Amino acid sequence: MELTVTQENFARALSAVGRVASARTQLPILSNILLRTDGNRLLIAATNLEIATTQYIGAKIAKPGAITVPARLISEFVSSLPKESIDIKVVKDSIHLSSGNYKSVINGVIADDFPELPTIDESGSVRYELNAEEFKQAVSQTVITTSTDSTRPVLTGVYWHSHEGYIYLAATDGYRLSERKLVKTESEVSAIIPTQTLQEVLRTLTEGSETIDILFDDSQVRFRIHEAEVISRLIDGKFPDYRQLIPSKSDTHAVINKQEFVRVTKIAGLFARDSGGSVTMTVDGDKKSISLHSIASELGENTSELTADITGGGQITLNSRYLSEALSVFDADTIEIGFNGKLSPCIIKSTDKKTNYYHVIMPLKS
Amino acid sequence: MELTVTQENFARALSAVGRVASARTQLPILSNILLRTDGNRLLIAATNLEIATTQYIGAKIAKPGAITVPARLISEFVSSLPKESIDIKVVKDSIHLSSGNYKSVINGVIADDFPELPTIDESGSVRYELNAEEFKQAVSQTVITTSTDSTRPVLTGVYWHSHEGYIYLAATDGYRLSERKLVKTESEVSAIIPTQTLQEVLRTLTEGSETIDILFDDSQVRFRIHEAEVISRLIDGKFPDYRQLIPSKSDTHAVINKQEFVRVTKIAGLFARDSGGSVTMTVDGDKKSISLHSIASELGENTSELTADITGGGQITLNSRYLSEALSVFDADTIEIGFNGKLSPCIIKSTDKKTNYYHVIMPLKS
Repeated sequence: MELTVTQENFARALSAVGRVASARTQLPILSNILLRTDGNRLLIAATNLEIATTQYIGAKIAKPGAITVPARLISEFVSSLPKESIDIKVVKDSIHLSSGNYKSVINGVIADDFPELPTIDESGSVRYELNAEEFKQAVSQTVITTSTDSTRPVLTGVYWHSHEGYIYLAATDGYRLSERKLVKTESEVSAIIPTQTLQEVLRTLTEGSETIDILFDDSQVRFRIHEAEVISRLIDGKFPDYRQLIPSKSDTHAVINKQEFVRVTKIAGLFARDSGGSVTMTVDGDKKSISLHSIASELGENTSELTADITGGGQITLNSRYLSEALSVFDADTIEIGFNGKLSPCIIKSTDKKTNYYHVIMPLKS
Repeated sequence: MELTVTQENFARALSAVGRVASARTQLPILSNILLRTDGNRLLIAATNLEIATTQYIGAKIAKPGAITVPARLISEFVSSLPKESIDIKVVKDSIHLSSGNYKSVINGVIADDFPELPTIDESGSVRYELNAEEFKQAVSQTVITTSTDSTRPVLTGVYWHSHEGYIYLAATDGYRLSERKLVKTESEVSAIIPTQTLQEVLRTLTEGSETIDILFDDSQVRFRIHEAEVISRLIDGKFPDYRQLIPSKSDTHAVINKQEFVRVTKIAGLFARDSGGSVTMTVDGDKKSISLHSIASELGENTSELTADITGGGQITLNSRYLSEALSVFDADTIEIGFNGKLSPCIIKSTDKKTNYYHVIMPLKS
């Protein structure tokens, strides 16, 4: 293999795939990056056997070939070089890199030892092309409520499915639940995408990304953004029938300025550290006020109040971290929060006409 | 105690003293911050028994008094409040804070239990007023070569002393040494200031700081910047006679573009991780080049080269981290590096006419 690339493209691609390469180390070759010529491009890929990520960059190929090299060393070396061209040459199992007065030899492993990169048969698969910004928002709004408990694998991902002609994303960790309505669809789809995969895809979306191409087969999903690709296995199993858990109406609800509520929640959380994040929200219809109260047993206590547009009234105890995280994924200026007494779930939604996001938090016993 | 302060001043002061309060926890009250009225100001102080740091802010005092409160909780609470005024009232051992609709009670400890803040008798002490920028640079250039080895306490600080009519700062950890010439002086001074104290003073220097007032007595030093004060004990003992370790001339020396040398050193360091940072520098008088070579036994090797203005020639092996750290504290565009063979120390200095900083690195055996 012998070729020339630009430092900028190569550094960017290495850094993008490097995250997946470094994630696991049981099988030493998985901490390597695969470099392989492909027509007039260089393929740069890494896999942890669950996720494979690939970048293509333009290259002047003098001699085709392939090799694998330690991810961390080559990424750091290339990112430290000046913005000029880099000549790459493979001699036996080593890769020789030179750029101006910088010359390195990095020992690799032959490409044959690298696991085969997964592929998806495009015929008969379900395919979507989505606006990158909308995709990013929908994923951010749902990954936060996925579970990290590996004993219930179906909850460790986002449930991507069609329902009544629309794509929905949903996730729950048993304590909270989120559902985002995305776009119209005519195809049927039902897949659970691992959280780690979606986080990797979010990082792959760069500033300029406009669309993202998504393809499902029975056991895998592929995300394609420009010249980058992330292929991942799906999570096996049946996602719980979560729709019954979303309260259809609330006896008590309040329309609140989001920015103020974020601050009040943050402050209440400071005093709730010793009590597992427990804060009590009191909605007072007469005073048109919402107050959050929290007690740090030995340290003190806090009450913060804000005015709101209120129907009904009541009290509920919530985990302040869950509340903060929920608020962080709304981009609306005002939000609506609703509940039916102390023991039923609390629902948060945006106040736009076409509400497309629901966030549900189970109350704590107070 | 009853008073009113602005959120901005109070938050800034709490955050500044909070660093010292949180550092130790053997004696629980040391994680508290002392609040005490002082004329028409509020004193905010913390101590870890070695360093005491104090900030004064303007306050509308309705009733004088004092209390101590948990540093972390009050800092985080006040910094989360909106930029408005905060009313503070002490009731028994608790402090009541309110700002608009935000109301908190934080349980404190009576001020009598707080260690007495150290003071310095100003008469008969040595006092300096220095330009803040110059002070900052001189301290940054020397703290990097202090030792962290508590078995030799005198090396864990910066030796601040007068010599032939000038103030000098010097520090060594046995592997490297730095000396910075500061300003003319007529007083005699010889003091070893703990590294942690100097780092605290550097953090206390804010953007607008123009001068810093420094006062020594036999066992303490006080730094005063605007309304802030750091008082620290000095380190007991005699600093080694380091001047004999600075080579007075070098058979081989090279004048190098600093920016390029920083890059070359960084790259060489990537390949030197497995060999304790060892990089070999070859200075070639005929080729007018300096090259750095490093070997990562299993991973590969690197050679990077740059052109330089050279006298003599030779080879020396250095720790790449020491070299990188040394280069990071020079603000010159070009530096001079010199040595006398493989076994003698390597010296780096700026190439300005009035060189005021020397950095010496002991070679590694190669």
